[in-house]
Amino acid sequence: MSDLKICIIGSGNVATQMGLALSRKWQIVEVYSRTEASASVLASKLGCTFTTDIKNLTDDADVYICSVKDSVLGDLLPQKNFKGKILLHTAGSLPMSVLANYTDNFGVLYPLQSISKARELDFSKVPLLVEASNEETLSVVKTIANGISNSVYDVTSEERGKVHLAAVFASNFTNHMYDIAGSLLADSNLPFDLLLPIIDETASKVHLMPPSKAQTGPAIRYDRNVIDKHLNMITDERVKRIYELVTEDIHESLKDKK
Amino acid sequence: MSDLKICIIGSGNVATQMGLALSRKWQIVEVYSRTEASASVLASKLGCTFTTDIKNLTDDADVYICSVKDSVLGDLLPQKNFKGKILLHTAGSLPMSVLANYTDNFGVLYPLQSISKARELDFSKVPLLVEASNEETLSVVKTIANGISNSVYDVTSEERGKVHLAAVFASNFTNHMYDIAGSLLADSNLPFDLLLPIIDETASKVHLMPPSKAQTGPAIRYDRNVIDKHLNMITDERVKRIYELVTEDIHESLKDKK
Repeated sequence: MSDLKICIIGSGNVATQMGLALSRKWQIVEVYSRTEASASVLASKLGCTFTTDIKNLTDDADVYICSVKDSVLGDLLPQKNFKGKILLHTAGSLPMSVLANYTDNFGVLYPLQSISKARELDFSKVPLLVEASNEETLSVVKTIANGISNSVYDVTSEERGKVHLAAVFASNFTNHMYDIAGSLLADSNLPFDLLLPIIDETASKVHLMPPSKAQTGPAIRYDRNVIDKHLNMITDERVKRIYELVTEDIHESLKDKK
Repeated sequence: MSDLKICIIGSGNVATQMGLALSRKWQIVEVYSRTEASASVLASKLGCTFTTDIKNLTDDADVYICSVKDSVLGDLLPQKNFKGKILLHTAGSLPMSVLANYTDNFGVLYPLQSISKARELDFSKVPLLVEASNEETLSVVKTIANGISNSVYDVTSEERGKVHLAAVFASNFTNHMYDIAGSLLADSNLPFDLLLPIIDETASKVHLMPPSKAQTGPAIRYDRNVIDKHLNMITDERVKRIYELVTEDIHESLKDKK
């Protein structure tokens, strides 16, 4: 299947990075994006044509990979005939069935990663969670997935939803903990970079032991002196509630594991 | 000051790893720990004698580094005469002044890192936050700190307290987000290791951009469809409240930055 022709619908973070990875293996024939500015930027990166009208999107492709906001997908796809084609989305939380009205051959190619347009990514290390409406389509989806990544997982829509939820905690919420920490330092004119070694070490440790074993600090010791001192230092009420709630959860979930 | 003689009071995570780093530069003359088992293990690593009675701790040292639980410090130190010696603690949240009763020459050497006994650490990359009661002591503390680390910061007790609070968010709370994510995957019999690439990438990104710029996911898009779907999937009530509160804070703090 080295002659697969692929269309990319969307030009955001995932469309850009997945498009780049795919273009090293297969021909990307066209990009659709709502605005000419973003469509042309991605098309030039991928060496293909672009369109800003989904109705005009080329029929000369085998696989259409749709990577747009979940809310836009339902408006966009009915405007184009995908019958006989393979249609995939890349979303964590959308069931595969949202594509069932447009073609018989549909599926999902979800990259479990925090992807930004500006940051180049080694796609070979990105876990890809795949699913398809039938065996033949699954075989094509797996060929594509294995072509760009070394870790491909066959999961149901329900399992993918759980993984997406877990990733919100492991990535989005973790990143927000970094953000709160940075704001607390900024209040004292201390640089965020001071925290990079402990951020890296905290991530590295869970390669070697489960997070419950890696936990340190006042919450797991339930050191009320330090906890109360910290609560008094936090001026933002929402951040204070986050401190209380996460501390309580560390304490209680440790007790459960004892 | 290559002939400094150092005593280590304590045998926990910080005492062990800092002791090892110090022993490559200076002579560690003795270790104190409450139990013979842990005192002897660390003493053999550091090539020195040990005692389990603080009253018997050698007087033949220049610097005494006390790395015990905050709550134990006040019981332990009055039992030994430190007059004329330099006495340091290694705690993030204790002001330097807790040592003022024992000697005129006191200070702090706080390693900003999540330190475990079993995991070897490159101390040269650990930020050390230092403070001392007078210029002469500060000079010795800085010599020691610069001898084992490439990043030494001169901060007040109040600033160190803020840094410690920030580290609770950046490390302890981050680690707990990993733990919650792992529990959600375990409910579906999916392995925690699936999350390691996104955990690593999330940590790596903030080396290049501030966390507020690195944020992705349903909370920052304020995608109510996905958020409500996620809330319905979470069965643990405390975890549900954490999801709601952190999502709200991501959304609101982004608005503040717009």
